[in-house]
Amino acid sequence: MDKVDLNCDMGESFGNYTCGMDGDIAEYISSANAACGFHAGDPLVMEKTVTLCKDKGVAIGAHPGFPDLVGFGRRQLQTSPAELRSMVMYQVGALKTFCEAEGIKLQHVKPHGAMYNMAGKDEAMAEVICKAVKAVDPSLILMGGSGSKLLAAAKDVGLRGASEVFADRAYEEDGSLVARSKPGAMITDEDEAIARVISMVKNHTVKAVTGKEIEVQADSVCLHGDSMKALVFAKKISQALKENGISIVSLREVIA
Amino acid sequence: MDKVDLNCDMGESFGNYTCGMDGDIAEYISSANAACGFHAGDPLVMEKTVTLCKDKGVAIGAHPGFPDLVGFGRRQLQTSPAELRSMVMYQVGALKTFCEAEGIKLQHVKPHGAMYNMAGKDEAMAEVICKAVKAVDPSLILMGGSGSKLLAAAKDVGLRGASEVFADRAYEEDGSLVARSKPGAMITDEDEAIARVISMVKNHTVKAVTGKEIEVQADSVCLHGDSMKALVFAKKISQALKENGISIVSLREVIA
Amino acid sequence: MDKVDLNCDMGESFGNYTCGMDGDIAEYISSANAACGFHAGDPLVMEKTVTLCKDKGVAIGAHPGFPDLVGFGRRQLQTSPAELRSMVMYQVGALKTFCEAEGIKLQHVKPHGAMYNMAGKDEAMAEVICKAVKAVDPSLILMGGSGSKLLAAAKDVGLRGASEVFADRAYEEDGSLVARSKPGAMITDEDEAIARVISMVKNHTVKAVTGKEIEVQADSVCLHGDSMKALVFAKKISQALKENGISIVSLREVIA
Amino acid sequence: MDKVDLNCDMGESFGNYTCGMDGDIAEYISSANAACGFHAGDPLVMEKTVTLCKDKGVAIGAHPGFPDLVGFGRRQLQTSPAELRSMVMYQVGALKTFCEAEGIKLQHVKPHGAMYNMAGKDEAMAEVICKAVKAVDPSLILMGGSGSKLLAAAKDVGLRGASEVFADRAYEEDGSLVARSKPGAMITDEDEAIARVISMVKNHTVKAVTGKEIEVQADSVCLHGDSMKALVFAKKISQALKENGISIVSLREVIA
Repeated sequence: MDKVDLNCDMGESFGNYTCGMDGDIAEYISSANAACGFHAGDPLVMEKTVTLCKDKGVAIGAHPGFPDLVGFGRRQLQTSPAELRSMVMYQVGALKTFCEAEGIKLQHVKPHGAMYNMAGKDEAMAEVICKAVKAVDPSLILMGGSGSKLLAAAKDVGLRGASEVFADRAYEEDGSLVARSKPGAMITDEDEAIARVISMVKNHTVKAVTGKEIEVQADSVCLHGDSMKALVFAKKISQALKENGISIVSLREVIA
Repeated sequence: MDKVDLNCDMGESFGNYTCGMDGDIAEYISSANAACGFHAGDPLVMEKTVTLCKDKGVAIGAHPGFPDLVGFGRRQLQTSPAELRSMVMYQVGALKTFCEAEGIKLQHVKPHGAMYNMAGKDEAMAEVICKAVKAVDPSLILMGGSGSKLLAAAKDVGLRGASEVFADRAYEEDGSLVARSKPGAMITDEDEAIARVISMVKNHTVKAVTGKEIEVQADSVCLHGDSMKALVFAKKISQALKENGISIVSLREVIA
Repeated sequence: MDKVDLNCDMGESFGNYTCGMDGDIAEYISSANAACGFHAGDPLVMEKTVTLCKDKGVAIGAHPGFPDLVGFGRRQLQTSPAELRSMVMYQVGALKTFCEAEGIKLQHVKPHGAMYNMAGKDEAMAEVICKAVKAVDPSLILMGGSGSKLLAAAKDVGLRGASEVFADRAYEEDGSLVARSKPGAMITDEDEAIARVISMVKNHTVKAVTGKEIEVQADSVCLHGDSMKALVFAKKISQALKENGISIVSLREVIA
Repeated sequence: MDKVDLNCDMGESFGNYTCGMDGDIAEYISSANAACGFHAGDPLVMEKTVTLCKDKGVAIGAHPGFPDLVGFGRRQLQTSPAELRSMVMYQVGALKTFCEAEGIKLQHVKPHGAMYNMAGKDEAMAEVICKAVKAVDPSLILMGGSGSKLLAAAKDVGLRGASEVFADRAYEEDGSLVARSKPGAMITDEDEAIARVISMVKNHTVKAVTGKEIEVQADSVCLHGDSMKALVFAKKISQALKENGISIVSLREVIA
């Protein structure tokens, strides 16, 4: 039977600021990426997020980002390899600690925002991140974009990788995402988005923006959980997957 | 044979800012308290501090503080129990991660600055901190001031405690430190300071500021490492202890 | 004709985090207290808040707080007089700059959260804050709680003070707010709250929690703008004031 | 008579962290660039720096940087034009406030670190920064590298520009600095460095790394103040300039 993981960012609240509808989206996903205090999240939010995931049976991963709260980790920041390594280890380690205190296992690491995008295209950054993750715990899964340098680096350093796809984004022929600034970058029709995901999971292919059919590996689908519209889509794609004989299971079960 | 631990704060540099003479003081101490990024330190400094301690054979502990870099964690901050718990777990967990990656074991936790002082007198704070430390790893040693609420709480929650004394501070009859604002609070004569430490280790007593002999437990002596004068004193007390038949060993050996 | 100012905190969003319904509440208030980047707000939010207030004809004040974003400035922080002075000047000066660049005048300063509460009862802190405000611009109005040390200090240092009252809070006989932890602290009935405000503006009196009629000075009424309920109440009290012959004007017109 | 300004970064201490020898370098320079709390400095340090400059008769400028304390503002950060504008206004405005409170006039603005380097080559960033400075106060002088986009933008938006040269750096034929990674980038011989500065001031020329004589405008020379060696050089160049009939005056006098 086909299977796929549904992941969503979580724990992005900070102090007095609430962000995301974590309790609601937890009903539909199988893996959560929890912010670790650098681009979002704070220690108390992290602890609560771990508890929520434990209660809901959602596998949890670390979502380390650049130390840029005001920019939400979405702004490119130039770091040295040593800085990058230690900031990843610090964040992943802190979240792992909350997991262990709750008696659950940290499942994966998915870099956030600009770190994810930069490392997706930059071999050196990707290698630093993967080695940092391995240094924390070699059994962690590294989640990266389908076809990204992150996944190549995970393989190189001996980490298990998980390939993530996006329901709402178009792909270039080389498997990279069409830049948001280009026409056709976003898949706005929900039914089309769902059909694409089903194709990616079942056939390992998707139609690129050029029309050509390309190969993709869909271990996990990235969902959003920050609006009612996002929640409704999460429910819809969740049902559609099941109706198409695809079970939604945590990342560790998908890549087992 | 009598034995005692010598501890010193370390890893208090931050980015471009250097603080302390870590490499030098490491020659004289048996345990280091490493800042964890909230009041001082940053991830890269933390990783380097762990490596330094490993290289020098110095046992390492976490030194969590309030999230107040500009105040260096020395300003009292009112936190909720839940905030305090999670900020301690986060910091201790991050440092523990760097230790594990280097293959060494985190030995102890010593709260920093205002957190140390407040929890030393506040049962509720002390209990929260000790439970947080235990949640991270019940084999960690909690270092607190001789006679403090921190040590009482450690005992209550089932953590091993280590009693710290100060060479350069006078004590009240109840075993608490004489406030810095009071006359006689500081022991400025180095020979007197050393003689007091030797008495505390060998006889478990020290003369209070009132002249009365009081009981103290000296598992560890707090040294400073931020000036040449401090380094010279560290060397001097280190030699004096050995000459008086007191071996300097890590905290875990003292309280074993 | 009787007159009063209605004030509300604004500009509390931060980066990706939205907080408050600034555009909506601006319709009902005459003065806004803009966060200055320490407990909330960021430079871009500040500039937008100044533009919004200018567009809506709302007078603007600075709302400096403790440097504690994760605690939203609501946690007590122990600062030295020199630290407190400079952190107030820095924040007020930054906001004043945005006002000047837009060609409007900064009207007032109202300390935020824990700074407001602590200085309300602490003469020394109140004096430091008022002197800091005066150093930035002696024509600024200092807004403080009715009967607070802040207003006494403003008078002492030669700043104009504006006395703020709360529609939803009960008062002790000495004019201080009933602590939130005590029964009867909150006025939950909206009509009663409005009647109390009208009495405070017209008669300069209000019934204390003990039942005794006490004197209060109501130059400004503090409203909230962070929920639909708060907006509805703002509209309601705004209408009730007008119906009772009380005009809503900016603080500088009230105390002129 | 020939004249030139000597400038140095100042006020880079932060909380417990001391950086630079501000009191000493103030003896040799005519203009100081004061950090504004984003990459270095804090409100109290800023106020003290303004007082120091006032006491020593050193003209003061704002030295705004990226919000990256751990990276000391030296790491490239991708910001939107609106973010960049407001972060410059915020920082310049805060420092201007301390100057006004001390009764002195803020003289200039020199972007720091990565912001200086990026804007030196990026027209759009340079324009945003210059417009932000002008919005704060159109009489401010914008200090930028000789031949940089910052100076071109200053001219375009109607700000007075001041052209800065480096005693210890080699120049390409196009007037840009030789990248530090290239051979010959640093002028390590002190006498050669001084001779080059004298040539730049008197003849408006310097020998490029290729050997070709190129034109440069030397309104100000950038010195360092963070080591004994830097102080000794500051004294040496200061004397050499005077001996060669070049007076050291503040930037506003140079470009008057």
